[in-house]
Amino acid sequence: MTTQAAPLTAGPVRVVGTGLLGTSIALGLRGLDVPVQLSDSSPSALALARDMGAGEPVGEASPEPALVVVATPPDVAGPVVLEMLRRHPGAVVTDVASVKAVIAAEVAAGGQDGARYVGSHPMAGRERSGAAAADADLFAGRPWVIAPTGDADPAAVAAVRGLALDLGALPVSLDPQEHDDAVAVVSHVPQLAASLVASLLVEAPESALSLAGQGLRDVTRIAASDPRLWAAILVGNAAPVGEGLRRLRAGIDSLIEGLDKAAASGPLAPGAVGALSRVIDAGNTGVARIPGKHGGAPRRYRTVQVLIPDEPGELGRLFGEVGELGVNIEDLQLEHSAGARVGIAHLSVVPAAAAALEDGLTNRGWRVVAE
Amino acid sequence: MTTQAAPLTAGPVRVVGTGLLGTSIALGLRGLDVPVQLSDSSPSALALARDMGAGEPVGEASPEPALVVVATPPDVAGPVVLEMLRRHPGAVVTDVASVKAVIAAEVAAGGQDGARYVGSHPMAGRERSGAAAADADLFAGRPWVIAPTGDADPAAVAAVRGLALDLGALPVSLDPQEHDDAVAVVSHVPQLAASLVASLLVEAPESALSLAGQGLRDVTRIAASDPRLWAAILVGNAAPVGEGLRRLRAGIDSLIEGLDKAAASGPLAPGAVGALSRVIDAGNTGVARIPGKHGGAPRRYRTVQVLIPDEPGELGRLFGEVGELGVNIEDLQLEHSAGARVGIAHLSVVPAAAAALEDGLTNRGWRVVAE
Repeated sequence: MTTQAAPLTAGPVRVVGTGLLGTSIALGLRGLDVPVQLSDSSPSALALARDMGAGEPVGEASPEPALVVVATPPDVAGPVVLEMLRRHPGAVVTDVASVKAVIAAEVAAGGQDGARYVGSHPMAGRERSGAAAADADLFAGRPWVIAPTGDADPAAVAAVRGLALDLGALPVSLDPQEHDDAVAVVSHVPQLAASLVASLLVEAPESALSLAGQGLRDVTRIAASDPRLWAAILVGNAAPVGEGLRRLRAGIDSLIEGLDKAAASGPLAPGAVGALSRVIDAGNTGVARIPGKHGGAPRRYRTVQVLIPDEPGELGRLFGEVGELGVNIEDLQLEHSAGARVGIAHLSVVPAAAAALEDGLTNRGWRVVAE
Repeated sequence: MTTQAAPLTAGPVRVVGTGLLGTSIALGLRGLDVPVQLSDSSPSALALARDMGAGEPVGEASPEPALVVVATPPDVAGPVVLEMLRRHPGAVVTDVASVKAVIAAEVAAGGQDGARYVGSHPMAGRERSGAAAADADLFAGRPWVIAPTGDADPAAVAAVRGLALDLGALPVSLDPQEHDDAVAVVSHVPQLAASLVASLLVEAPESALSLAGQGLRDVTRIAASDPRLWAAILVGNAAPVGEGLRRLRAGIDSLIEGLDKAAASGPLAPGAVGALSRVIDAGNTGVARIPGKHGGAPRRYRTVQVLIPDEPGELGRLFGEVGELGVNIEDLQLEHSAGARVGIAHLSVVPAAAAALEDGLTNRGWRVVAE
C-alpha cells in the first residue's frame, strides 16, 4: 500500500490465482478502494481470499475487468494469460511469474492480441505460501520488474507500472530475456548453490554441525525453500540457469585442480595457492557490486558488536539505549552459537557514529567489541 | 573472558604471533591476571599488541612458559610448534590454526615430544585482521575445537581445554581429521560456494544487480573474505575440501542435465523437474540440521515482519516498544531493498508470543506483516 490519495490503477481488477502473490495484490488494491474480482481453481483457496477481504469471487454479474493479473504457478501462467486475452478483449493482462521469456513466447505464439499483455515480476515472497500468508504490504519497497515485449501497447505498460506503484513497489524495466538472465544470476543460481551446500549437511556428523557459525547459516538460509515451486521456476528459466551453473562448474574445476596439487604435493605445490586465491579474489569483487541500502554504490558502515545475555528483554534494552544515544542503526544481525548463553548483535552504523556508539554502550555497561 | 574468580590456565603463557587471534587470547588472559609473554616476527605488530595491554614482549629475563599458544598463519604453524616444543621442554604447546591434520602430521614427524602438543581451533574471527581488531571477548560463546592426537598427554589436553574455558569459549573435542572433515563441510566449502556465486556478479549488468534481494546478500556475505588467509587455509585442508567440491560438482552435473532437457524440450521435459526438485529437497533436509539457538535440535520460531521508515531512531523506538511489550526476540534480521525508503525487520519469537507481539505493535501504529 502507498500513502497517495488516488490510485493509478483503474478497476475492476481481476486476480486469477489467490495464492500468496495474488491475494497480496488484491488486498493492496482493496486498501485503495479499487474493485477486485477473484478466481482460483481451488474453491477453498478462493473462499479464504474472499474472507480475508481481498475482493469478491467472479460471478455472472461481474463487470468486465480493466486489468487482469495472472498469479498462477509459473508452469500454467502462459495458457491462462492467453485465455484472459481471449475472454476479455478490452483488458490489459499481466502475470507475476518468476520467469518471463517462456511466457512471452507462449503468448506470442497463441494467436491473441499480444499488445495488451505486459509480463511482470514483483521481487517479493516469503517462506510461507498461500492466501493465509498474504499481506497488502508485501511489495512495499521491493523491485517489481515490468517486462514488455516489443509488441506491447505503451498504455498497457503504463497500467502495469501503475499497479506496481500503487502497491508501493519500485518498477524496473527490463525486456523478458534480460529479466531471465538477471534473475538467473541474482536469484536462481544462488538458490541452487545454497541448496547444494545445504545438501552436503544431510550426511554430516552431529559434531560437524555443532561447529556451524553465522557464515554457514547465511549461505544456506534460502535452502529452506519450496521444492515444487522452485523446480517449476528453474525449468522455466533453463538456459540462463544452465549457463550460470556451467560457469560455477568451471570455477569448481579450477579449484579442484589446485586442491589436488596441494593434496598430492603439499600446501605449497605450484599453482595451488594461486588457483584458490583467484576465486576468493573474484568473490571480493563481485560481492562489492551488490547495491547497499539506498541503492547506488555500496556504502561502507562500521560494525559494532555487542554481547547480549540470553535473557528476556536484553535486546529491547539494548535498542532502547541505542535510541537514547541518538544513533541510527543501518543494518544489524544477531548471532548465536550452539549452546552459548550469550548472543552477539552486529550493529552497522555510519563510520562517524561508531566511536560514540561504542563509548556510549560501554559506559552503560554493555560488553562492546569493535569491528 | 569469563566471570569466574580464578583462571584455569597456569601462566606464564607465551603467545607466538600477535595478530587478531593471538592478541585476543593474550588480552583475555591478561584480564584474568595470567602473565603473558608476546612474540611476533614483525616488531611493529609486537609493539602494537604490547601497547594494547596484551602482555610483555619475550626478553632475556622471561621465565619459562607453562603454555605456548602458536597463533601464526596456518602455513607456518607446524614448524613453529616444533620449535616451541624443542625450546620449552616443560611447556604444553597448542596452535589455533583453522586446519589440524596437516599440522599434527608435521609435529608427529618432527622428532619432538608430541605428548605435549594439543592442536586447537577457536571458531571465531572477523572481517578485519591484526592486533588492532583484537578483543578479549572474541571467543565468548563460540565453539573452540580441541583436537589432540592419540599421543597427547591428558594433562596437556586439560590445559588447552582450560584456556578455551578461561576465554569464555565452548570446548568441542574432535580428532584432527574429524575437525578438518567437519570444517570442510560447515566452513570451507560454503566459503568457496559463496565466492563462486559472488564471482558471477563481476560481469553482471547493473540492472541485474538492482534486483538483488536479501537471499543473494545472505549467500554472498562471506565472499568478502581475505584471499591470502583463505588460500592458506584451503590448501592446508586440500583433500576434504576437494572431496566436498566433487560432491558439489556431481550435484551441478545432475542439475545441468535436467536443465538441458528443459531447454531442449520445454519445462515439462521428462526428468527435468525431478532433477531440480531433488536438489532443493535435499537442501531443505540439510538446512534443517543446523542447530538453532541454545544448541540441540532446531527450534521453530514465528517471524513477525515490521516495516521500518528509514529515519533516525525508528529501529530504537521499535525495540524499545518490543521491550515494553515484554517479548523476547530470539533472532532478527534487517532487510533493505535498493532505493527503498523503508526497511523490514524480521523478528523471530517463540510461537506463543507472536500474536501478542503483532497485536501490540499494530496497536502502537507499526505496520506489521505476519509470517
